[in-house]
Amino acid sequence: MSGADLNVVALCGGVGGAKLAYGLNRLLGAKLAVIVNTGDDFEHLGLTISPDIDTVVYTLGELADEERGWGRAGESWNFMEALGGLKGETWFRLGDRDLAMHVLRSRALSAGVTLTDFTGRIASHLGIEASILPMTDDPFATIVVTADQKLAFQRYFVELQARPEVRKIEFQSPSGGTATSAALRAIGVADAVIVCPSNPYLSIDPILAVPGIRAALDAAKAPIVAISPLVGGRAIKGPTAKIMNELGVATNCVSIVRHYGFLDGLVMDREDQADADAVGIPVHVTNTIMRSKDERVELARECLRFLDRLNS
Amino acid sequence: MSGADLNVVALCGGVGGAKLAYGLNRLLGAKLAVIVNTGDDFEHLGLTISPDIDTVVYTLGELADEERGWGRAGESWNFMEALGGLKGETWFRLGDRDLAMHVLRSRALSAGVTLTDFTGRIASHLGIEASILPMTDDPFATIVVTADQKLAFQRYFVELQARPEVRKIEFQSPSGGTATSAALRAIGVADAVIVCPSNPYLSIDPILAVPGIRAALDAAKAPIVAISPLVGGRAIKGPTAKIMNELGVATNCVSIVRHYGFLDGLVMDREDQADADAVGIPVHVTNTIMRSKDERVELARECLRFLDRLNS
Repeated sequence: MSGADLNVVALCGGVGGAKLAYGLNRLLGAKLAVIVNTGDDFEHLGLTISPDIDTVVYTLGELADEERGWGRAGESWNFMEALGGLKGETWFRLGDRDLAMHVLRSRALSAGVTLTDFTGRIASHLGIEASILPMTDDPFATIVVTADQKLAFQRYFVELQARPEVRKIEFQSPSGGTATSAALRAIGVADAVIVCPSNPYLSIDPILAVPGIRAALDAAKAPIVAISPLVGGRAIKGPTAKIMNELGVATNCVSIVRHYGFLDGLVMDREDQADADAVGIPVHVTNTIMRSKDERVELARECLRFLDRLNS
Repeated sequence: MSGADLNVVALCGGVGGAKLAYGLNRLLGAKLAVIVNTGDDFEHLGLTISPDIDTVVYTLGELADEERGWGRAGESWNFMEALGGLKGETWFRLGDRDLAMHVLRSRALSAGVTLTDFTGRIASHLGIEASILPMTDDPFATIVVTADQKLAFQRYFVELQARPEVRKIEFQSPSGGTATSAALRAIGVADAVIVCPSNPYLSIDPILAVPGIRAALDAAKAPIVAISPLVGGRAIKGPTAKIMNELGVATNCVSIVRHYGFLDGLVMDREDQADADAVGIPVHVTNTIMRSKDERVELARECLRFLDRLNS
């Protein structure tokens, strides 16, 4: 069985993860299921916002703004401008095109449609072959604990621009949220699991914290590989390295492997090759920076090759 | 007491009425209360839309698109385009800037704020001196009865472009909606009531049908004058004349006066001067077409002069 015949599950957060998911979708199509972090989801202006789901949907649907790194290409901001004029809250920027997603989602959810079904419907409208699966359909919130307060994720990440020093990250699920049956089924039939190069603390840990996910991964016979989000000990984007520093963890691949604890292999960047022996599990060294769509596909191909090797 | 010292209540629908309300606001400022039809309000895409309120707010707030006749100036339509791409409903056009109002209103109402308070807050942010008062804070719907169906107002007016033949117009208020205390108070202290040149059937009748309004008008000692929405037997805009034909009513000023039944005076266009004697109440003949902002103020001034004459 070669890489492109595998049923693959990818665990994914926002931008960096979505880039790899894009490459995997190009190679695997319907054989790919992307389980996406919803710990960042929140209610804003009465709308339900699912930032990571939307980044994955827009990226795989070829609608993403590649330069800005979030939201839609060709976006305009007249809603925000008018909102400011009416003295509404403007700290979280919602583009005019992006709003269509939030309005449709909010209406669907309040009509009793699950986030999984809504996301599947939208992905299908956009011609996306992979399954994009929220980790849970229940309320589940990532909370950033600082020295003196507990911050809802978007307050920390967007409003305070990830400046506060992180002491701990917690997950809150008032209704005892569980993994969706679609996500558990995808893990159950997976030939391989890929942990995307997303922020381990803010994007992947929430997925692993959803009751049911970790047990399903432990029960799966599929090998699990992660792509290190670090390149030369730094994060390409976002506060991964900053948070590792704040938590007193060395910013290297060894820490990533230890943090997850269940990996069968690690894909790491050439810049980090010196760590290859120290990580203690099989590694695949390659270029992990995805500057172009071709490089996303190339990294996806490298991951599948690595999985082939582990499977053989 | 001259016109500009009067406490005036204006009963108002959308575009035509809002133009006169603009003129009145310029002359009267805080001495004007505009009681606005909410029978067209509806839920769409999970948002609460109040078309006539918004037209009055945008017009008095100098934000209206004067050429299109509805919505905001400098509007863009990227939300609608994206909505179509996600297979959302696009028959009711919501501009990107306009959406800010609907999102803020929907959130306020679901948090328990009344439509009256929300509208007052927005009007104040926009520096509008007049009070803009919804006729009711309760659900209250105008229903258009055709030969074979009952149509919610926006389905009739926007989706079917007012094409179906009207047999009857009904008003539905599932929770037994009543006039707001603010609207009743305004009528109670009014020195004069002006029925704007809005559609009598679709815009003014809903206001008169709200329990409490008609009784307050009957109890008020203030003279009530209407501005005929017809010019030469035709409506400037919208289906007033078409509906009068469908209901078997002659499209002239006599019909307007008979329809209301409680007027103390009628302001009519020069083109209709021939009807002046037949209407049976005092009339004021002037230009009623408001092509410019100056003409709005001029017609407002003519109305106040006429009221002065009736009051003296």
